[in-house]
Amino acid sequence: MNSTKVAIVGLGTVGSGVAEILLNHADRVARHAGSQVDLAHVVVRDKSKPLRAEVPASIVTESLEDVIADTDVKVVAQLIGGIEPARSIMLKLLEGGKDVVTANKALLAEHGAELFSKAREVGRSIAFEASVAGGIPIIANISQCLSANQITSLRGILNGTSNFIVSQMEELGKDYAEALKEAQDLGYAEADPAMDVDGSDAAQKLAILAHLAFGADVDWNEIPREGIASLEIVDMQCAAELGFRIKLLAVASMSNEQLELHVSPTLVKRGTPLAEVRAAFNAVSVEGDAVGPVFYQGQGAGQMPTASAVAADLIDTVVGRASITFKATELWSDGKPRIQLGDPKQSRSRYYLRVIVRDRPGVLAELASVLGKHDVSIASMIQKAAEGSQQGPKPSSDGGSTPVVSLIIMTHEALAGSMAKAIGEIDELDAVTGPSVRMRVM
Amino acid sequence: MNSTKVAIVGLGTVGSGVAEILLNHADRVARHAGSQVDLAHVVVRDKSKPLRAEVPASIVTESLEDVIADTDVKVVAQLIGGIEPARSIMLKLLEGGKDVVTANKALLAEHGAELFSKAREVGRSIAFEASVAGGIPIIANISQCLSANQITSLRGILNGTSNFIVSQMEELGKDYAEALKEAQDLGYAEADPAMDVDGSDAAQKLAILAHLAFGADVDWNEIPREGIASLEIVDMQCAAELGFRIKLLAVASMSNEQLELHVSPTLVKRGTPLAEVRAAFNAVSVEGDAVGPVFYQGQGAGQMPTASAVAADLIDTVVGRASITFKATELWSDGKPRIQLGDPKQSRSRYYLRVIVRDRPGVLAELASVLGKHDVSIASMIQKAAEGSQQGPKPSSDGGSTPVVSLIIMTHEALAGSMAKAIGEIDELDAVTGPSVRMRVM
Repeated sequence: MNSTKVAIVGLGTVGSGVAEILLNHADRVARHAGSQVDLAHVVVRDKSKPLRAEVPASIVTESLEDVIADTDVKVVAQLIGGIEPARSIMLKLLEGGKDVVTANKALLAEHGAELFSKAREVGRSIAFEASVAGGIPIIANISQCLSANQITSLRGILNGTSNFIVSQMEELGKDYAEALKEAQDLGYAEADPAMDVDGSDAAQKLAILAHLAFGADVDWNEIPREGIASLEIVDMQCAAELGFRIKLLAVASMSNEQLELHVSPTLVKRGTPLAEVRAAFNAVSVEGDAVGPVFYQGQGAGQMPTASAVAADLIDTVVGRASITFKATELWSDGKPRIQLGDPKQSRSRYYLRVIVRDRPGVLAELASVLGKHDVSIASMIQKAAEGSQQGPKPSSDGGSTPVVSLIIMTHEALAGSMAKAIGEIDELDAVTGPSVRMRVM
Repeated sequence: MNSTKVAIVGLGTVGSGVAEILLNHADRVARHAGSQVDLAHVVVRDKSKPLRAEVPASIVTESLEDVIADTDVKVVAQLIGGIEPARSIMLKLLEGGKDVVTANKALLAEHGAELFSKAREVGRSIAFEASVAGGIPIIANISQCLSANQITSLRGILNGTSNFIVSQMEELGKDYAEALKEAQDLGYAEADPAMDVDGSDAAQKLAILAHLAFGADVDWNEIPREGIASLEIVDMQCAAELGFRIKLLAVASMSNEQLELHVSPTLVKRGTPLAEVRAAFNAVSVEGDAVGPVFYQGQGAGQMPTASAVAADLIDTVVGRASITFKATELWSDGKPRIQLGDPKQSRSRYYLRVIVRDRPGVLAELASVLGKHDVSIASMIQKAAEGSQQGPKPSSDGGSTPVVSLIIMTHEALAGSMAKAIGEIDELDAVTGPSVRMRVM
């Protein structure tokens, strides 16, 4: 059997997992790659530090040039996180004639166009299965397995940290701060969880998937997004009573030949696959015009699930499939995008509203009148005692002596723009005691 | 853009779906295939009959020879069901130098070895994504996306008809005959549903997946299987009370370096992904040593989901990926199987038992004693009035005057062989009034 040399740049969590697979499971890798896959170099920043994987000292180097100079090395897994030096290293590897495998989602989201264009220019490939939802092979499934379909929608739970937090809140009645603390203690959340909980991480992944599935040209920064930091237990409870769970969903869906994108906490019907995704799992629900709905669930992150994706990409690249797929992939190509982004204000959805009002005659009529004016039609409403909300009532003309109640409203489909205007006006009503809560309903 | 000619043999439900994709969505197919894909021939049995798809008359033929003689045709979708003439046609196509795509699971299960060996001999490929769980790309996922893993278990709902029937029984309290009738009325079940409801169809699919995932050499006929025809509502109800649903599961799992295979109605914990698969959907839950659990759900059959899989295979073949994958696939190769099949009697599982007994002193002790003798340990037990069972009491020495009760027993893990012996003895006890029900618990 012939053999192919590969290298790893970066021996952190994922890198050491990949090294472990290549070194300890060489047989199975060779079987699928059609050739022995030899790990020839591992590039680390500091050789003197203890290594995280049992890698022979002879292949460890601090010099990227060692890898580039070794012309037998055809494929390199670039597993350094962050933007720099990851970006420069990747460009050097491509210019040095190497096919590259990466798990770096942030880098692709920020510099995908530059990197893909460089790869095309020098005739190399980039494989990036591990960059989105590590344990779910969603990149291969969209770009290959579902290639006969026009994908019409894609809804994902793409951030495991957020899903862990909302699951804890819902199942155990913990509040956001408590659930976040637990996620940090368990290693699911970073010390600075901002990108995870504000929807940015999910938006970066959604941008990559939307490129692939719809040929859309998306800057992840422009995807409208809301995070989970202001979620309240009371809304979890109200959603449960209505038969829903709240999930941080990343959504790309086509309507009228335009693509709508957003990341937001969303009420998802219990018993449907996305609603039942617990803990730190990721999931993606794809709808294709031929295949219908397909649902994927797996671990979103973690050493070995991500390493599994990187190793599969290494195998695909060694065996020649990755280069074929890369050529057919229009991701970040110079071509005209196949689909235009719709105006977020025109996006249609059902909504869940929770409005806290002073319980006095005429309030409901005022509220209904504002909604009606903006073409928002009420599907159902429940009135509840307003306990349990973290929102303090705002000072009001009647001195706060009137009791307050929560109105839980489910609307029919409404335009996002109209809903935003309606909520703006509702929150200005004298009878309304604080900012209203508004979430999409799937 | 260059172009590639393909052909379809058989214009039934799936064939016409594939023709529709190729003819009506040529753009998207070309985009993924890297070349125009021209449908050059469609072979039908009788040209005079009305066609099921809008195929230009000029490309319709009754002669397979037309396809074989056209050396520009590199890839053929062979979409005739059953064994013959499908088998002969496939052999002729391979010998004629064509790569073949097929959806014919029964043919692969029966003659896979012959067909794959022929393809290897003549240097062609066979792609067969559509043969198992049409709407779930499980073949590509196992043979490619999860290639860095040792798969350790695979549990699937692989027969949509059966899942529709058990879902109807459970959700609506219909009995088996009624639910089957509805499945037939809705077109989910054939007039002769035997292969679907007795577990044979699922066993054929399981054999293909076990070949792929474990390198096992499996004759589907030898996979132990039980169907759903004798399922009773009362067991659905008891399972529900215990927090489970009953699903027809096809299972391949490794233990002690051996592979255990079976198809049987199984109690699955509510809230877990497999338990929540409803209607005619299929699902597969795969566990890999690196990736952990990955769950897939999609439509198991139907015209367009299956056509989606066939068209993706056509694209993969045209673009060159299928031939790479086929070379690495050991499916039905002459090599030594990578895993041995375990003795089904040694397979371990928890069990659900329902035993109907005369309610008299000492019965429980007798039962517990038989179970204990065979090393079956009771985890929990509920005693219930025995109404609702379709089983008639057997004649007995006391003339049937003692009231009967149902004992619902959940066991700890036990060997299948021991359980079978225990049940055999239990059913011989004088206090037991009919054959006991026994199902695995996942």
